[in-house]
Amino acid sequence: MTRTVYVNGEYLAEDQATVSIFDRGFLMGDAVYEVCAVLEGRLVDTPGHFARLRRSMTALSMPETLDNDELLHVHQELVRRNALREGLVYLQLSRGVADRDFAYPGSETPPTLVLFTQAKAVIDSPLAHRGAHVITQPDLRWGRRDIKTVQLLYPSMAKMAARAAGADDAWLVENGLVTEGSSSNAFIVTRDGRLVTRELSSDILHGITRAAVLRLARDVGLVIEERAFTPEEACMAQEAFMTSATSMVTAVVSIDGQALGDGRPGAVAARLRTLYIEESLRQAE
Amino acid sequence: MTRTVYVNGEYLAEDQATVSIFDRGFLMGDAVYEVCAVLEGRLVDTPGHFARLRRSMTALSMPETLDNDELLHVHQELVRRNALREGLVYLQLSRGVADRDFAYPGSETPPTLVLFTQAKAVIDSPLAHRGAHVITQPDLRWGRRDIKTVQLLYPSMAKMAARAAGADDAWLVENGLVTEGSSSNAFIVTRDGRLVTRELSSDILHGITRAAVLRLARDVGLVIEERAFTPEEACMAQEAFMTSATSMVTAVVSIDGQALGDGRPGAVAARLRTLYIEESLRQAE
Repeated sequence: MTRTVYVNGEYLAEDQATVSIFDRGFLMGDAVYEVCAVLEGRLVDTPGHFARLRRSMTALSMPETLDNDELLHVHQELVRRNALREGLVYLQLSRGVADRDFAYPGSETPPTLVLFTQAKAVIDSPLAHRGAHVITQPDLRWGRRDIKTVQLLYPSMAKMAARAAGADDAWLVENGLVTEGSSSNAFIVTRDGRLVTRELSSDILHGITRAAVLRLARDVGLVIEERAFTPEEACMAQEAFMTSATSMVTAVVSIDGQALGDGRPGAVAARLRTLYIEESLRQAE
Repeated sequence: MTRTVYVNGEYLAEDQATVSIFDRGFLMGDAVYEVCAVLEGRLVDTPGHFARLRRSMTALSMPETLDNDELLHVHQELVRRNALREGLVYLQLSRGVADRDFAYPGSETPPTLVLFTQAKAVIDSPLAHRGAHVITQPDLRWGRRDIKTVQLLYPSMAKMAARAAGADDAWLVENGLVTEGSSSNAFIVTRDGRLVTRELSSDILHGITRAAVLRLARDVGLVIEERAFTPEEACMAQEAFMTSATSMVTAVVSIDGQALGDGRPGAVAARLRTLYIEESLRQAE
């Protein structure tokens, strides 16, 4: 099946969807993105994702050009046209087309807005069932990981390193501390049941799912510590998991080959995953 | 005038030149590039640039797909079709088109090769005549600056910060030491006449012009120290300059508002610029 995608106001067959070679997203990584999960044909937490999109745009001095209602409509229209039941909608906004120059083009330059769908088993995810094996890798990304840009080559390299090591994913380490996963936020549950995840800063992505899961964890009375942790502390933890829009809450069952707890997805991760899926299904639109 | 550009084997009008929205250069910054200067309608040091392109490709496990003779032909054909006398040819190679995934697509995926020209006053550059004012900025780029990828958002941000401060460019500083310029290598000349530039590592781009200028400097008997220097040492220097394919050798006359020497382009920079232009004109093809 050929997907219908969205490019600058037009719905197009995916093999007809192009951008100029002078698009700054292509030439300079000058673009931001968001990924919204789709469950039962409806979108999860678009307000959170749209708010972060604006935060990324502001951080990069991109002109304010988007309307939330229109954005939601395009998301929903893509889901409808592609008869998508479960998966995601990807949105990318670049600074637009201009002759190549390090300096930004004038703010009158129209941005490039691209959206497309991907089908994916989100709720009944095989990886969530068995739990993920992760390896640690040095975090060599740029210093503004709070801005969700398309400069994703290093996360890509880290994911390939994980595969080469027979693992599913990589957790990134800087100055002896875990920052986050290659495309997720990282959590551990200590042996005395405290939930630990790194505090927000420019060192990590301000995950929309991370925020929702912390809220749910607080609601059920878990003790939360927002602080950095070492790979060694993670290896000694009772449980670990990662959060992202489409992995939701996915247990980590080993780190650098060392099994956590009994080597199976933990109870806290399972409970938070269930709560997050329930809330998402309730609120999706 | 509409330029003719090159995309995957075709010569196209620039406004017809597109890539898929699924190109990994657009979605993930998964692309490398080179810039060759053009003088008198001929290309400067293509062997150096082609060798570095292959080095970047190897570092990213991109399949070997290019032929140097063919690449040179495309460069020369673009110069001819656009009647370019002076400026540059830009080349970008991405890992190609695949449904979005952090994992690389299979090595059978054809890469995307794009080239285009830009006209620019290289020899008679106004900036080289008056000398550049630079400011320092923290170096927030990723850790593999030796790979020439299109993840150029931070250099772009640094250039914009320089403009906002009334300067021409930014020199980047990490751990108290200058790494390089936003799109150039950084040199100083100490008060006792030694030429200092940072040693090669993954912290800086392995500049083709940097290498040529060091060779020329050695030939004329300059004492060279390849080591890092602080912004403070740079501010106390007799001269400073930067090198890149199209700025060649461009004097820096102030750093963070502090004038160097007598505040005009220095003699060593001027001599090396002349030598580099002479050699480039001799060897261009």
